[in-house]
Amino acid sequence: MTQSFHAIVPAGGAGTRLWPLSRQGNPKFLHDLTGTGRTLIQGTLDRLAPLSDSVLVVTGQPHVDAVADQLPELPAENVLVEPSPRDSMAAIGLAAAVLNRRHPGQDVILGSFAADHVITDHAAFAAAVRTAVATAAEDYVVTIGIGATEPSTAFGYIHVGDPIATGAHQVLGFTEKPDAETAAEYLATGAYRWNAGMFVVRARVLLDHLARLQPTLAAGLEEIAAAWDTTDRDAVLTRLWPTLTKIAIDHAIAEPVAAAGGVAVVPGEFDWDDVGDWRSLGRLLTTGTDGVRTLGDPQDVLSLDSPGSVVAPTSGRRVVLLGVPDAVVVDTPDALLVTTRDQAQRVKDVVDRLASEGGSLI
Amino acid sequence: MTQSFHAIVPAGGAGTRLWPLSRQGNPKFLHDLTGTGRTLIQGTLDRLAPLSDSVLVVTGQPHVDAVADQLPELPAENVLVEPSPRDSMAAIGLAAAVLNRRHPGQDVILGSFAADHVITDHAAFAAAVRTAVATAAEDYVVTIGIGATEPSTAFGYIHVGDPIATGAHQVLGFTEKPDAETAAEYLATGAYRWNAGMFVVRARVLLDHLARLQPTLAAGLEEIAAAWDTTDRDAVLTRLWPTLTKIAIDHAIAEPVAAAGGVAVVPGEFDWDDVGDWRSLGRLLTTGTDGVRTLGDPQDVLSLDSPGSVVAPTSGRRVVLLGVPDAVVVDTPDALLVTTRDQAQRVKDVVDRLASEGGSLI
Repeated sequence: MTQSFHAIVPAGGAGTRLWPLSRQGNPKFLHDLTGTGRTLIQGTLDRLAPLSDSVLVVTGQPHVDAVADQLPELPAENVLVEPSPRDSMAAIGLAAAVLNRRHPGQDVILGSFAADHVITDHAAFAAAVRTAVATAAEDYVVTIGIGATEPSTAFGYIHVGDPIATGAHQVLGFTEKPDAETAAEYLATGAYRWNAGMFVVRARVLLDHLARLQPTLAAGLEEIAAAWDTTDRDAVLTRLWPTLTKIAIDHAIAEPVAAAGGVAVVPGEFDWDDVGDWRSLGRLLTTGTDGVRTLGDPQDVLSLDSPGSVVAPTSGRRVVLLGVPDAVVVDTPDALLVTTRDQAQRVKDVVDRLASEGGSLI
Repeated sequence: MTQSFHAIVPAGGAGTRLWPLSRQGNPKFLHDLTGTGRTLIQGTLDRLAPLSDSVLVVTGQPHVDAVADQLPELPAENVLVEPSPRDSMAAIGLAAAVLNRRHPGQDVILGSFAADHVITDHAAFAAAVRTAVATAAEDYVVTIGIGATEPSTAFGYIHVGDPIATGAHQVLGFTEKPDAETAAEYLATGAYRWNAGMFVVRARVLLDHLARLQPTLAAGLEEIAAAWDTTDRDAVLTRLWPTLTKIAIDHAIAEPVAAAGGVAVVPGEFDWDDVGDWRSLGRLLTTGTDGVRTLGDPQDVLSLDSPGSVVAPTSGRRVVLLGVPDAVVVDTPDALLVTTRDQAQRVKDVVDRLASEGGSLI
C-alpha cells in the first residue's frame, strides 16, 4: 500500500503571554516574532512542506483570511475551519478522518505540529520526523522529545524508556509542567525529555484508538469527515460540532496509550522553542551592541545602560530605555507593556485582569 | 515715594529632565504637571498676582502664543519677548529697566520667580515675599532660602549668616550643586538653605549693581528699555540683543554682591519643588491604591506589583506595569521613556543623545 505523510498544523491559541503583541484577533502564530521576515505559521509550513505530501491547517473562522493571506501556496481545501474551538483532539481527529477519506487505499501517516513554535535546524528536524514516520509505521503513536537543557517548569515532560528497533524509545509516561524541584530531578536522571506536543501516527491507528477510548467523539468526527467534502458539510458541522467532547489529544490518546505501551518517543536533536513568553522570545532575537534585543527596527530604540532588555517597538514611536537592565517593553498602537524578563511569565495575569474588566485590548 | 512691587517670571527653560513630556517647543512650564488643572506658569501667576502690582513674563518668541493662551488675564505689554535666550541676567535686567521706566517717580521693587516651580502653601509664600520686599527696601538684594530637608545634590545652597532687622539674614555666600558628602555636611550644620532662584530687589539697586559689575550689559539693557515702549523697539533689539553678555544673575549680581555683604536671605517656610525630574515630579502626585502615581487618568494605567512607580499616560494608550516597582514610564504620542526613579536625573543624557543624533523628538 502506498504510504503518504501529511502534516497537520492546528492554529488556534492566542499566545496570551505574548500580549500586547499577540491578541485573540491577531494571535502569536500570525506574527514574525524572530525577525526572519516569516511569521511563525509561515516558518512552520516552510519546515513541513518539504517533508510531507500535504499540509493541513486547522484554524478558526476569525483567522481564515489571515491564514490564507500568509500561506498563498496552501490549497483552500487544506484549511479546515472549525466553527468553534473544541480542543486539540477534535482538531487533529477531524484532520485525520478527512485525510483518510481523501486518500483511500493509502497508508496515511499524519504528524501534528504546533503553528507557533520555532525550530531553526531544519535538517535535524527532518531527520527526527523521518524516524517518527518509520516508527509510526510500526503502529506506535510517536512523539518527538526535545533534549532538556534546563529544569524548566514551563513544559511537560516525556519519561523515556527502552529503545525500540526504529531508533525511537518506548514512552513510560507523560507528566504535566512540574514544580522546580521535580524538574531538577528529571534533568538529573537524563531520562526525561520536553514534550513539544508533536505527534506522528498512522491515521488508522489514531482513529482506532479514538474509537476505543472516545467512541462518541470518534463517531462525531467520522460523520463530519464523511460530509466534509460535500454540500452537507455546514449542516453536519452545525449539528454535531458543538456536541464534540472537548479534550486534549494528550489526555484522550497519548496518556492512556502510553500506559498500555503504545507510545514511542523520537529524540529531537534540534533547537526548539515554543516562544511561550517574552523572556523566551528574547532568547531568539539578535542582541545589539547595547545588549538589547529588539523585535522590530533597532533604530526605533535608544537604550542607555539597559543590557538584557527585550523591546518590541511596533507603534512607530521611539522607545527609550534608561538604566533598566532586563526590562521587557512592548509598545503597540493601543497598549504598552512594561515588565521584566523574570516577570514575563505573569503576563497572562495581565490578560486575565483585562478580561475581568470587560476584555478590551485582549 | 510710592512703593510698588512687580513680579518677573522668566519663562524659558525646556525642562530637559522631564523629557519626553517637556520639549523645547512645549516646555515644562506650559504643562499641568501636578494634576491641579493649572499649568506650572498658571500656578506661578496664581501665587504672584495677589501679591504684586503687576506681573511681567519674559519669554521667547516660540512660546508667546502659548503664554498668551494660558494667561488671558495678562496684558499683552506685560509679556516681554526676547529675540533669543541671553541667560537670566539679561531677562531680569530688561524687565527691571522696563519697569523702572513704566513707573517713573515710584520706588519700584521687583521679585523674580521661576515659571516652573511648585509651591502649594500660598500663605507662607506670601509671608516670605512680604519680608523679602521689606528687606529689599533696605537696599539688599534678597533671596528666599528653602529649608533643606535632605542632603540634595540637585540644588544650589545659600550659606545663612547673622539676622538683620527685617527678619532676614545676611548671606555669607552661595554654592552650586554640591557633592553628596558636602550636601550632608551642609544639612548637618543647619546653616545652609536651598537656593530656589528667587530674587527680590529694588529695581534701582539691581540696575546700579549691574552698571558697576557689568557695565556693558547694563548700558545695552538701558538702551533697549528706553526703546521698548516705542516704535524703535524692534530695530534696537535687532542691533543690541545679540551683543548682550550671556550670564546668570547668580554670577553677575548675587555672588559678588554677597561677597560685599549686600545680599540677604529670607527663610521660606513653605513647601517648594522645582519639579526637576520625574522622581521629583512623582512626589507631587497622588498615590493610587496600587502604590502608583499617575500624571493623567489613572484609568489609563493597569499595574500589578509595581508600587512606587510614576506613570504619565499622555498618548491615550493603556499602560500596563507588571512587577516593576519604582519604574518611571512616560508615554507620549511620538516617544516613550522607560526608566526608574533612581535613574530619572539622567534623562538629560537621553536628550543629549537625541540631540547628537540630529535632534528630532527633543
